[in-house]
Amino acid sequence: MASKPAPDATRRSEKSRRAIYAAALSLVAEAGYPKTTVEGIAARAGVGKQTIYRWWSSKADVLLEAFLDLAEQTARPAGHDGDGHETAGIPDTGDLAADLKAVLRATVDELLDPRFDAPARALAAEGVVDERLGRVFVARLLEPQLQLYVARLRSARDAGQIRRDVDPRIALELFVSPLAQRWLQHTGPITYDYTDTLVDYALYGLAPR
Amino acid sequence: MASKPAPDATRRSEKSRRAIYAAALSLVAEAGYPKTTVEGIAARAGVGKQTIYRWWSSKADVLLEAFLDLAEQTARPAGHDGDGHETAGIPDTGDLAADLKAVLRATVDELLDPRFDAPARALAAEGVVDERLGRVFVARLLEPQLQLYVARLRSARDAGQIRRDVDPRIALELFVSPLAQRWLQHTGPITYDYTDTLVDYALYGLAPR
Repeated sequence: MASKPAPDATRRSEKSRRAIYAAALSLVAEAGYPKTTVEGIAARAGVGKQTIYRWWSSKADVLLEAFLDLAEQTARPAGHDGDGHETAGIPDTGDLAADLKAVLRATVDELLDPRFDAPARALAAEGVVDERLGRVFVARLLEPQLQLYVARLRSARDAGQIRRDVDPRIALELFVSPLAQRWLQHTGPITYDYTDTLVDYALYGLAPR
Repeated sequence: MASKPAPDATRRSEKSRRAIYAAALSLVAEAGYPKTTVEGIAARAGVGKQTIYRWWSSKADVLLEAFLDLAEQTARPAGHDGDGHETAGIPDTGDLAADLKAVLRATVDELLDPRFDAPARALAAEGVVDERLGRVFVARLLEPQLQLYVARLRSARDAGQIRRDVDPRIALELFVSPLAQRWLQHTGPITYDYTDTLVDYALYGLAPR
């Protein structure tokens, strides 16, 4: 047994880490962000408070990493390599509309996944009223995803499929933001047909060609 | 004095009503929706709880009407008739892009108005986690505004300025939702340039013509 201390410790740590992520996500989903505490997360995870503070500096930190981990566990956006590593980007098959539709369909799956829905809503709601926290979570969780669209749109622009004067960071909002608003504000159903339509409208415009 | 009881009573009622709206909006902005109570609104407005229950059935009801009133007080969307009555719709000058840009610029003004910002955020945040409440507020406050865009896009479709196969209720989301997401999630600056760009992208598409 003395020959394997490191793997055992790693397994124990990994188990604690998973328990802490699960506790943080379920607590924030049930109680909301303001009432979630490091003490509460520790109690639910069955670990000491100090175990959490050894790895993270605040509840915001724990939740941030719990969400990054959850995003790897739930619906993987197209482009993930399938074993949990960071995605290399949105696929580039040369067919921009098809590539965007595939990624948005994966996002639909994620938004409709109950493991994601309640904790993500609790965090998003807090970000609406707490600008500082909102900006941290957007910078760490949302903006890296949006930058994948920026890269894909730039490549399409280089290929002549997007007008040269289009700003990719604004352009992506034409299909990403409607989906986000429907999810955040319950303003309409979320389906593949809907996101496919958004891509077609955004690429080819509402005015006749 | 006995000859004017009704006007006096009306003035008193109107004064109480304004005080109650102001109290409800300031309380929800400071304390958030869950901690706002009819008792707290009554205390801040300097009226009895029964005065509120005579006119409204719940805090959600009071807030709903306070927001409808606020929308009339703050930046009026183009199309308002200027003396507080319901708007007749988005102007139709024949230039769809110009009309949409004008209305979105008015929305930018409203979103950046501090009287609107804090209470609207408190309500929007609650709607993210409380689907029932969110749907009520969307149905009463947001969807009637969106239907003005539907009407304007239908008229543009009839004039041949929008493709016949475009669904106006989805199409409006290409320029309305990006602005909403930037406001809700602090994902980017809110300016006239930005909303003008959204309209151009949405109407003429990202792909070369």
